[in-house]
Amino acid sequence: MTDTKKLEQYFDRLWPLCRSITGKDHLKSLDILSELIPLTYLNFETGQKVNDWFIPKEWNARDAYFIDPSGIKRASFKVNNLHLVNYSIPFKGKISLSELKKHIYYIQEQPQAIPYITSYYKERWGFCLSYNEFIELPEGEYEVFIDTELKPGKLVVAETLLEGESKKEILFSTYLCHPSLANNELTGPLALSFLYDRLSNKSKRHFTYRFVISVETIGTIAYLSQRGEYLKNNMIAGYQMTCLGDPGKLTLKKSRSQNTLAERAALKYFAETNTPFNIEEFDPGNGSDERQYCSPGYDLPMASLMRTMYARYPEYHTSLDNKNFISMASLAESIDAYEKIVECIESSEIYLNNLPYGEPNLGRRGLYPTLGLTNEIDNQTKSIMWLLNYCDGKHELEYISEKSKINLNFLKDTVRHLESQNILTKI
Amino acid sequence: MTDTKKLEQYFDRLWPLCRSITGKDHLKSLDILSELIPLTYLNFETGQKVNDWFIPKEWNARDAYFIDPSGIKRASFKVNNLHLVNYSIPFKGKISLSELKKHIYYIQEQPQAIPYITSYYKERWGFCLSYNEFIELPEGEYEVFIDTELKPGKLVVAETLLEGESKKEILFSTYLCHPSLANNELTGPLALSFLYDRLSNKSKRHFTYRFVISVETIGTIAYLSQRGEYLKNNMIAGYQMTCLGDPGKLTLKKSRSQNTLAERAALKYFAETNTPFNIEEFDPGNGSDERQYCSPGYDLPMASLMRTMYARYPEYHTSLDNKNFISMASLAESIDAYEKIVECIESSEIYLNNLPYGEPNLGRRGLYPTLGLTNEIDNQTKSIMWLLNYCDGKHELEYISEKSKINLNFLKDTVRHLESQNILTKI
Amino acid sequence: MTDTKKLEQYFDRLWPLCRSITGKDHLKSLDILSELIPLTYLNFETGQKVNDWFIPKEWNARDAYFIDPSGIKRASFKVNNLHLVNYSIPFKGKISLSELKKHIYYIQEQPQAIPYITSYYKERWGFCLSYNEFIELPEGEYEVFIDTELKPGKLVVAETLLEGESKKEILFSTYLCHPSLANNELTGPLALSFLYDRLSNKSKRHFTYRFVISVETIGTIAYLSQRGEYLKNNMIAGYQMTCLGDPGKLTLKKSRSQNTLAERAALKYFAETNTPFNIEEFDPGNGSDERQYCSPGYDLPMASLMRTMYARYPEYHTSLDNKNFISMASLAESIDAYEKIVECIESSEIYLNNLPYGEPNLGRRGLYPTLGLTNEIDNQTKSIMWLLNYCDGKHELEYISEKSKINLNFLKDTVRHLESQNILTKI
Repeated sequence: MTDTKKLEQYFDRLWPLCRSITGKDHLKSLDILSELIPLTYLNFETGQKVNDWFIPKEWNARDAYFIDPSGIKRASFKVNNLHLVNYSIPFKGKISLSELKKHIYYIQEQPQAIPYITSYYKERWGFCLSYNEFIELPEGEYEVFIDTELKPGKLVVAETLLEGESKKEILFSTYLCHPSLANNELTGPLALSFLYDRLSNKSKRHFTYRFVISVETIGTIAYLSQRGEYLKNNMIAGYQMTCLGDPGKLTLKKSRSQNTLAERAALKYFAETNTPFNIEEFDPGNGSDERQYCSPGYDLPMASLMRTMYARYPEYHTSLDNKNFISMASLAESIDAYEKIVECIESSEIYLNNLPYGEPNLGRRGLYPTLGLTNEIDNQTKSIMWLLNYCDGKHELEYISEKSKINLNFLKDTVRHLESQNILTKI
Repeated sequence: MTDTKKLEQYFDRLWPLCRSITGKDHLKSLDILSELIPLTYLNFETGQKVNDWFIPKEWNARDAYFIDPSGIKRASFKVNNLHLVNYSIPFKGKISLSELKKHIYYIQEQPQAIPYITSYYKERWGFCLSYNEFIELPEGEYEVFIDTELKPGKLVVAETLLEGESKKEILFSTYLCHPSLANNELTGPLALSFLYDRLSNKSKRHFTYRFVISVETIGTIAYLSQRGEYLKNNMIAGYQMTCLGDPGKLTLKKSRSQNTLAERAALKYFAETNTPFNIEEFDPGNGSDERQYCSPGYDLPMASLMRTMYARYPEYHTSLDNKNFISMASLAESIDAYEKIVECIESSEIYLNNLPYGEPNLGRRGLYPTLGLTNEIDNQTKSIMWLLNYCDGKHELEYISEKSKINLNFLKDTVRHLESQNILTKI
Repeated sequence: MTDTKKLEQYFDRLWPLCRSITGKDHLKSLDILSELIPLTYLNFETGQKVNDWFIPKEWNARDAYFIDPSGIKRASFKVNNLHLVNYSIPFKGKISLSELKKHIYYIQEQPQAIPYITSYYKERWGFCLSYNEFIELPEGEYEVFIDTELKPGKLVVAETLLEGESKKEILFSTYLCHPSLANNELTGPLALSFLYDRLSNKSKRHFTYRFVISVETIGTIAYLSQRGEYLKNNMIAGYQMTCLGDPGKLTLKKSRSQNTLAERAALKYFAETNTPFNIEEFDPGNGSDERQYCSPGYDLPMASLMRTMYARYPEYHTSLDNKNFISMASLAESIDAYEKIVECIESSEIYLNNLPYGEPNLGRRGLYPTLGLTNEIDNQTKSIMWLLNYCDGKHELEYISEKSKINLNFLKDTVRHLESQNILTKI
């Protein structure tokens, strides 16, 4: 089966579930993805303190709608789960239109779109309608039915570690807490899971890859309360994954530190493949979970790679962000890009010259021509010399390649020789 | 009474006094200013060592003139105290014109100007004349009369502290050691004293403001010998005040460190008010007391804000630097500028995020919309996020404002919220 | 005798010797140079470990040639010592042309040039021919005669120290290990020796100058194994000397650190004399012994100053790099340039202001006008003030000169005053 077909199958299975930051549909979604990626669950109990936050109650929605005076059922949760404000408390009763309207959300500027609204931390109930539906509501008495529950439970962050030769880690993080939304939700977890599949099938990985399927904000904060210190010591690059299926070109959003391996690897990929891209500065005021990873207490090298940035396309956070808006081909292409960037990272080896006092004797190790010839030094010897000089634990091979204008793969081959002779050690 | 009228009254009272780096007229001048600003005197005794210097004798001048062969009294100290070389030793006697001429100073290129000449550290006597007067001196015997005294006494540096909520200090420094000179003397102490008055009337001050009325060079060195170490730990910005009444535009001269709060606050003011200005680099070879504050042993964040820079206008250090050269309106405008810059500084708050590990839970503190809406994040939330990320004790709000393109006052409002919740603490 | 005549005499004496990295002719060459420069020999025994290397056997060549089937003696070592692969093992015997050809090296693209080939670390024998000679070799049996020896001995690095007032050192390094090659060999040791002569005749030297006549790579590594740590603490600039007699313009190759006193002094010289020059970035993949000095374990401020860079002219490492290719006038000019750069370095004084807390009292030391005058501050006072402010042990006078736009020599005069008063101390 092609990737696009498989992506579509998983997309279609995940689509109808009414995910939230907790609850059964969130867990069902994780279960579906765990067919693709083995997930370990970190459980945080309702009421548990994680950094500055408390884990909220678990929320589950079974049904919701209202019946208008003429008997027509409207805003049916089962037709589109966006109709129900996410985390709505249960409610049953008859109310007037004017009373009902206080609980209805719509976007006048996008009359066909149902907005996506949440109320995780304040108890309320509500419905979301397209403006076209909203203005057609007849006067009279309405019967409201919201069958949800809020109860002590847990919030789950799922992760897996794909170990490599090195303990140094690359982090991929996404979130799975939106109901039926396509680009700004399902493309992230799908891309991450498929990327896992591709990387796990590699016969060899140098770095360790960590995959996190969080729920936005609180989940990532909870996660960092457990993993933050470890990541500060071991994470060398990371990417926040979201908005990966729309037709726009790729966007690299920089980390707070601006020039880390994360940015360099992505830029390398863009350059090598002539891929057009947008670049965005780090912006704490408009972002996703990279804001948590880059908060001043952690300040991790966490960039974002997406297509059109969230909040930059009108379909964002509305019912228009659906399967029609994205394409599986575009999503697969995003996964390809990530895979290629991982290849760039894999080649981003950082070495230490164990014999830094003058040039080591390369000749007796078979690394130097035994004849001193008249013509220019050969490329392998040149690359050896560059490596010996710049492998001081501060410069990755890409950097050395750029500075020396020696092709990266060529340089990598040379590194293997030097490594086998214990001249260079990977760090 | 308007400021300009009041400035003029004080100017007129200070003008005739024959100030020097010591002496009764210096103290009288301080007494006059102490009607505007409460001053504490730091006394340094004649002979006392201050860093590399020794405090000189106290000098007082009562009268001085010479009578030409035709009986005309010339170069009368009582007509213009610039006629007497400042710190002249006493002398009485009859001498020839040629002998007298060895003691006369003039500026041929400015035939109407009496120069301002001092001889603090070498004992001599002398007169200053306009070149026009000089060339009219008839041949013959002259009777010279210089009634001055040099005796053990003290050198006084006056200061006051206007305390704020924070111990962190802004320093204003000027000098009061020139006789009847307007722009390059009296405008500095007048501006400083009036600025004190304005700041002391503020109902609230965040920073502590230190006002120093020194005497140039030796006074400031003496002052730094006592306050230097404290200032190194507590001063976050400072300005040398002089040349503030001429018609020229404002000039910011940078500190040795070039980009401190002092420069940023002034530039902010210029930009916000569309005030035209000159900028000058730090120049140890042409400067005033900021050279002492910025000497390598102290290296304080001390800029200068003046109008036309000293030595850049022909009236400088001559009798032409008088009341006609300056205007009280221009001086009042300079004080306004300082007051506005102080406002910029007051808003230059430096904070520390007490909850730097991921985003704090803003919702439970009423700082975040309880509804997750579709439209873009509102400006307050944006500003909270920028503050949480950049309040790491290294970036003042102006800096964050510029980087985030969020209006400074708006950002300040947000800070208040965060402060009241103990999320940010001012440092 | 003029320098060019004297250079030519020494060149002619050194030319015929068959130098290598060890051996009698290397020692004879050092003996000849020691007429010009007193040399201390650091001896490294065969088999001795120096950093990662082992000192090889000593090599001496007495004669070598082969006789073709028609009885003609060819490739005679005594005609041109380049005919013999340097470090060839002894061999005597009759072999066919096809067998002989496996031991012959030539350059088809330069049919008249005999290449320069070495085999220090692998035992083999070989001949070097011009391609024109090579293609004329008739079929048949050849009699090969190589009279060389490889035996336990020593490798010698020669050095001398020309002491100055300061322990801080400038290093000149060259190598003397090539047989009859002119530009890329003899010009380096000749320039270094003549430079020694010039500097030793100076009546006064501030810095200490170290001269090293090494053998390329292994000699310098052996040398650094003994002197490396001392140089890290005391060397403030250095130059690798080679390729100094060709007609090309001067080339400055930067050190790994890029902006040290070595580069600044050379650039100063170029600018002051309007000397046209090339600039080359540090290049670990194409270099001489500066690669050892700049290896990450030492990272010394070692630039190179040459004419046309090695490997950039076709005569390089062939018999065409001979006396006709270079000129003694050009070589003498290179020595002049070095001498002038040394003058720049001598003036590159680094001082510390001993009285950094405010301005010292210059007046009582006779360093400040006793009269405070109206006109602008004089240039000497200006220079004093700049020096007092920037002599913080981090900025050499050239830097201060550039920043202040005060002429360097003028600044130096001022420094003398301040030094004599113990205000500044040279470091």
